[in-house]
Amino acid sequence: MNIDFKKLADKYQTPFYLYDFDHITAQYTELKESFRARKSLIAYAVKANSNLSVIKHLSNLGAGADCVSIGEVKRALKAGVPTYKIIFSGVGKSDEEIKEALILDILLINVESSAELDRVEELAKSLNKVARISIRVNPNIDPKTHPYISTGLHENKFGVDIDTAKRMYIKCKNSEHLEPTGIHCHIGSQLTQLEPIRESINIVANLVRNLKAIKIELSFMDVGGGLGIVYKDETLINTYDYAQTILDSLFGLDLTIICEPGRFIVGNSGIFVTKVLYEKINGNKRFVIVDGAMNDLIRPALYDAYHRVEVLNNNKNLSDCNLVGPVCESGDFFAKNIDLPETQSGDLITIYSAGAYGFTMSSNYNTRARVAEIAIENGNDRLIRKRESFEDLIANEIEFL
Amino acid sequence: MNIDFKKLADKYQTPFYLYDFDHITAQYTELKESFRARKSLIAYAVKANSNLSVIKHLSNLGAGADCVSIGEVKRALKAGVPTYKIIFSGVGKSDEEIKEALILDILLINVESSAELDRVEELAKSLNKVARISIRVNPNIDPKTHPYISTGLHENKFGVDIDTAKRMYIKCKNSEHLEPTGIHCHIGSQLTQLEPIRESINIVANLVRNLKAIKIELSFMDVGGGLGIVYKDETLINTYDYAQTILDSLFGLDLTIICEPGRFIVGNSGIFVTKVLYEKINGNKRFVIVDGAMNDLIRPALYDAYHRVEVLNNNKNLSDCNLVGPVCESGDFFAKNIDLPETQSGDLITIYSAGAYGFTMSSNYNTRARVAEIAIENGNDRLIRKRESFEDLIANEIEFL
Ligand SMILES: Cc1ncc(COP(=O)(O)O)c(C=O)c1O
Ligand SMILES: Cc1ncc(COP(=O)(O)O)c(C=O)c1O
Repeated sequence: MNIDFKKLADKYQTPFYLYDFDHITAQYTELKESFRARKSLIAYAVKANSNLSVIKHLSNLGAGADCVSIGEVKRALKAGVPTYKIIFSGVGKSDEEIKEALILDILLINVESSAELDRVEELAKSLNKVARISIRVNPNIDPKTHPYISTGLHENKFGVDIDTAKRMYIKCKNSEHLEPTGIHCHIGSQLTQLEPIRESINIVANLVRNLKAIKIELSFMDVGGGLGIVYKDETLINTYDYAQTILDSLFGLDLTIICEPGRFIVGNSGIFVTKVLYEKINGNKRFVIVDGAMNDLIRPALYDAYHRVEVLNNNKNLSDCNLVGPVCESGDFFAKNIDLPETQSGDLITIYSAGAYGFTMSSNYNTRARVAEIAIENGNDRLIRKRESFEDLIANEIEFL
Repeated sequence: MNIDFKKLADKYQTPFYLYDFDHITAQYTELKESFRARKSLIAYAVKANSNLSVIKHLSNLGAGADCVSIGEVKRALKAGVPTYKIIFSGVGKSDEEIKEALILDILLINVESSAELDRVEELAKSLNKVARISIRVNPNIDPKTHPYISTGLHENKFGVDIDTAKRMYIKCKNSEHLEPTGIHCHIGSQLTQLEPIRESINIVANLVRNLKAIKIELSFMDVGGGLGIVYKDETLINTYDYAQTILDSLFGLDLTIICEPGRFIVGNSGIFVTKVLYEKINGNKRFVIVDGAMNDLIRPALYDAYHRVEVLNNNKNLSDCNLVGPVCESGDFFAKNIDLPETQSGDLITIYSAGAYGFTMSSNYNTRARVAEIAIENGNDRLIRKRESFEDLIANEIEFL
């Protein structure tokens, strides 16, 4: 796509996030299509990018929502996702959150521990409801990704082991307030290898068969999210192969497949656009200082994540530099030791693959207002979240001064 | 101090940050007193904890404010810090920020590059103002702290080298719109060794003497912040020795000393209070899951920072566990492999030394509302920032839906 960043920067000021909604459509459609042989629900993982307009766009395409807090559930509802397409996951749900989820009657509560199942039962009982339960199984498989986003090993806090899951399903079956409805497994994020996925789904499918044998019939198999995207030069899992692997594992089982991708849907739709403030040289090191910072996009600091960077000028004179923001920490960088052309104050810089875990993780550190979010669709841009004002930042404090 | 956390949790709900204002007073006073032999200004580094009531409390004690964005400057003003005690630092100031700082006529603009000095001159000229300039010198000293908070090496983006600084001061002297007023150096945060400080101040003092010889007379020496605190078992720099070291270095120079501590003032005033949701065991690993998370306090995930943890129950049955939050990342932890007593859902857990770089770095990741902030002073508690509501979180998006 040919985006006129200069025009956008004049219109919205920098820094800002830009999301290509057509790319989101394409990603959603590709994944949905690959499951076409089967009943399926793509429940978009809201945590990746929770802007209401992004969720609404996906909801209009038919997507559901995978939520990890009651706040995310409320976002999904505001954006028009029907309750029967909403899942509530997460290792630590509060009583209030569980109650609200029960009252809203969403599709599934993904339960991650025995203690939580007990709690859900109690609360469902107090509300005289039946909770539709899915249990997150931790298959103890190494997903081969960054330790912070690897979630499918026993040493992680996520899910329960197979034996525990089985006991929990039996408890559900024997409870008036719990209905064993689904099963869930998610082994990590930014997955680029199919084998760990195959192994985990096989383990989970095997449990489904064992449950069937004891007359516990589930309706949904949630295979998690985690499909990787290209940040640099990754070789990706082919979505057709992905779907086929899952379908093969589920052979003979009549289950609706739920898939909860986040990054895959929105990651490469997003560009963080920032402006050069100054260049400087310290010792032998060149620094390009921009108006965006780690508070806007923390992935480089937090995960040492790579984001492709482009300087929008015609200079061909490349040299090594660090691309950094104004925040007073050495961790405030977007890229280290990269070759970039000489820049002038005011030159725009685009930071790619910023659509997932970008804005959602942003903060007001250094009393920096969170930036604007812009959608571009069919060549037309529009604001979907306005830049914060100073008054926004102090709104919850000023009355106590 | 004897704090009734249970009462506070009932009153304000969990999680929340609690700040002991009496501790803040004590820390401020200790540092101020140690410089008593000399004209000094403690310019509190607002970035550490920018709550308006915290700044106001310090302002009432006589503190100034060290700010790294125009947002922080505005916070300081709102909280009552007089303009003549406000400094504006930071490697990347935008034109709008510089203009506002000039119009507000704050004490000093700390300049961090030649390009920035040119820009300040241009903007001061356009406003027909004279900018009081302080230049941040990068003394190329290893402060021996975490790489992300080490700032005084040439490989860092901060400050300029001695020769560049000298040239910049000469430029100031020759400019109608720049007034060489101060000098600045800050080598890192959580410093526990005096020697790197002594070395840097000596380097800077030497420059001040050289400038004097060419008739450039500065009025302020900003020795930075960075004084460490006890998180675990650190041996600290004695504030008396600290002050004495600085005074020794400045022998014969008639300079007002500015010191810009953040962590030292507020770090150990703060406690993050959270509540147990569940316990679970995965494989052989015990997890205690609480209602606070990495979005509330990111220091463990970002810096692998240690925070002392206490479970507020009477259980003496300790065993190894990870203390984790509900966020769907393995990086969401407060402590790993620590011995904690058995807990029940609802037990309170206190996470200490959370007053600096805690709330200020918090985000809405996972659509989690930012928590309440409470002050306690003379045994009386009061809300100083209310918990965010769901409506707050979507306020800047909903109109575009
Ligand atoms: C349970 C669960 N589902 C889905 C996702 C989304 O992952 P991704 O964005 O990699 O698709 C995550 C991410 O952390 C998760 O924990
Ligand atoms: C220039 C400057 N001054 C002061 C501080 C405050 O540091 P501390 O909180 O360690 O005192 C910082 C922290 O990053 C800084 O960069």
